[in-house]
Amino acid sequence: MPELRKDPVAGRWVIVASERAKRPMDFRAAATSPRGGPCAFCEGQEAGTPGEIVAIRQGGSPPNTRGWSARVVPNKFPALMVEGDLERRGSGLYDLMNGVGAHEVIIEGPQHFTNITELSVGAIRNVLWLYRERLADLKRDRRFVYGLIFKNQGAAAGASMEHSHSQIIVTPIVPLLVQDELRGSQRFFEYRDRCIFCDMVEQEIRTGERLVIDDPNFVVLEPFASRFAFETWILPRRHLVRFEELSDAALGDLAQILRATLRRLERALDNPPYNMVLHSTPFDMGNVPYYHWHFEIIPRITGVAGFEWGSGFYINAVPPESAAQFLREVRES
Amino acid sequence: MPELRKDPVAGRWVIVASERAKRPMDFRAAATSPRGGPCAFCEGQEAGTPGEIVAIRQGGSPPNTRGWSARVVPNKFPALMVEGDLERRGSGLYDLMNGVGAHEVIIEGPQHFTNITELSVGAIRNVLWLYRERLADLKRDRRFVYGLIFKNQGAAAGASMEHSHSQIIVTPIVPLLVQDELRGSQRFFEYRDRCIFCDMVEQEIRTGERLVIDDPNFVVLEPFASRFAFETWILPRRHLVRFEELSDAALGDLAQILRATLRRLERALDNPPYNMVLHSTPFDMGNVPYYHWHFEIIPRITGVAGFEWGSGFYINAVPPESAAQFLREVRES
Repeated sequence: MPELRKDPVAGRWVIVASERAKRPMDFRAAATSPRGGPCAFCEGQEAGTPGEIVAIRQGGSPPNTRGWSARVVPNKFPALMVEGDLERRGSGLYDLMNGVGAHEVIIEGPQHFTNITELSVGAIRNVLWLYRERLADLKRDRRFVYGLIFKNQGAAAGASMEHSHSQIIVTPIVPLLVQDELRGSQRFFEYRDRCIFCDMVEQEIRTGERLVIDDPNFVVLEPFASRFAFETWILPRRHLVRFEELSDAALGDLAQILRATLRRLERALDNPPYNMVLHSTPFDMGNVPYYHWHFEIIPRITGVAGFEWGSGFYINAVPPESAAQFLREVRES
Repeated sequence: MPELRKDPVAGRWVIVASERAKRPMDFRAAATSPRGGPCAFCEGQEAGTPGEIVAIRQGGSPPNTRGWSARVVPNKFPALMVEGDLERRGSGLYDLMNGVGAHEVIIEGPQHFTNITELSVGAIRNVLWLYRERLADLKRDRRFVYGLIFKNQGAAAGASMEHSHSQIIVTPIVPLLVQDELRGSQRFFEYRDRCIFCDMVEQEIRTGERLVIDDPNFVVLEPFASRFAFETWILPRRHLVRFEELSDAALGDLAQILRATLRRLERALDNPPYNMVLHSTPFDMGNVPYYHWHFEIIPRITGVAGFEWGSGFYINAVPPESAAQFLREVRES
């Protein structure tokens, strides 16, 4: 059983694997799937994954057979284990609990393909529908407080399988960056009685200088204090606390905006590796007036990060205003 | 002039370059020096760097000529500019200030070499002496509150010059991870009237399971909630608030410990790229009873990081207890 351990000074939680390493070198090379497929995520290879949790099947074919368009399965190498109690406990100065949680993979399409933008808007909508479905289901488990949905695009961004997929990790703790955002946005609300995300959306639409796409329902922008070149956020225009409350119609609109955003990044940066992370309100919080779900997309174009890992201090060589201008001018297709 | 911009939600400050990008692709490839030298950091190439700030010269040779063993120069491509006022200001919702600060390079030796462990303990002591010297000098400038010393080892860890060097960035803000640590350690002190770092050192020496080197003056350990495989910290055993208060004798001891630690990591992990970051108390804080300077060393062995960038949530596949055992058993040379 992996452990969730808390750094006693900085307060961050880390999943620490329990398996003892054989030799240090065993950790040097990340296993990656063969290029070009077919792979365990392809249609016809259903036996290569753990049994499916849910799938979108038009023809009513049985689980774990052909005939699906998107499919959710448990991660074969899960970071957290779904069975067991948390058993929160101390160890001298330190705090820890069992590494209980869920770790699932959303396989975004049946043919071997490497990029979600190869899908139609309708197929991307199915993927977003599965995000919502899994969050809504997993939040019923009272051990869990957060559903972290993310997508690693390209080996350089940490993807070990090239077949296009997303992941969800459901945890008994809230990720540090979401905690920071909750604290900051709550402080703003106490002072101003307004949601800081709503204010930001309003200001960005008004000034336009960091805006990439302005849509009736969603806003795509380069944040004022972008940590990374071409860091891009997608936010709903109206106050919406959590992703899983999106309506069916809004999922369709979001699919279109997400595809358009990723296409622009691909065109501008020549198919960059990237990480996409969903920030949303924890399961056990009510309809807070101060927080607003959003996607953060981080292209991994500047090669490697340096000392930022050890300091939390960022240097960004591309002003977000320049990045936004490039992305506005680039053609989507 | 670059800008320091604050993320209004999460509260982190970012240096954003002011120069407008020509084309997005200009940022794709990081410039790196030719392998094998000689390079602008080599003895005899002093004209290739900005004029030196301080150097260790045994023979009394004049500045910017041969005859030095370690040398500090301004970074040729500084992230912050040393001249100017901060001009703290708002822009609607946002806060920013001018990117005023210092950005210097500590060239660790005159011959073209790629790793600080190739130096003798005495030569490493000289490098640490320059760290202390520059911190003590730069803290006299009242615009600055923090001196961030770091070292990127290897191109994969962000080093653009292979000739072994360290950097110092002096800023008008405190890096986020140091802020988190100050807040957490202060909270612990309020509750227990003890320094959490001193408690940690005591517990780690007592249990021994995460200890790498136990020395009369310094402790080398794998932290309980290690974010990365083989993350390694070096801490003074007795309560010492800031690096620049180390005595001459302690610098010599630290040089030996640092060399031994890095040699063990090199042996265990086959000369890994790594980042080393100094965490110390901000310039403008007094002798706080709760904080304790330390080095954090992060080997970059697991290829690339994934979604951690966007969540602050870490998964570490190597338990620190295993890593410590490997490092204890490996021979230094």
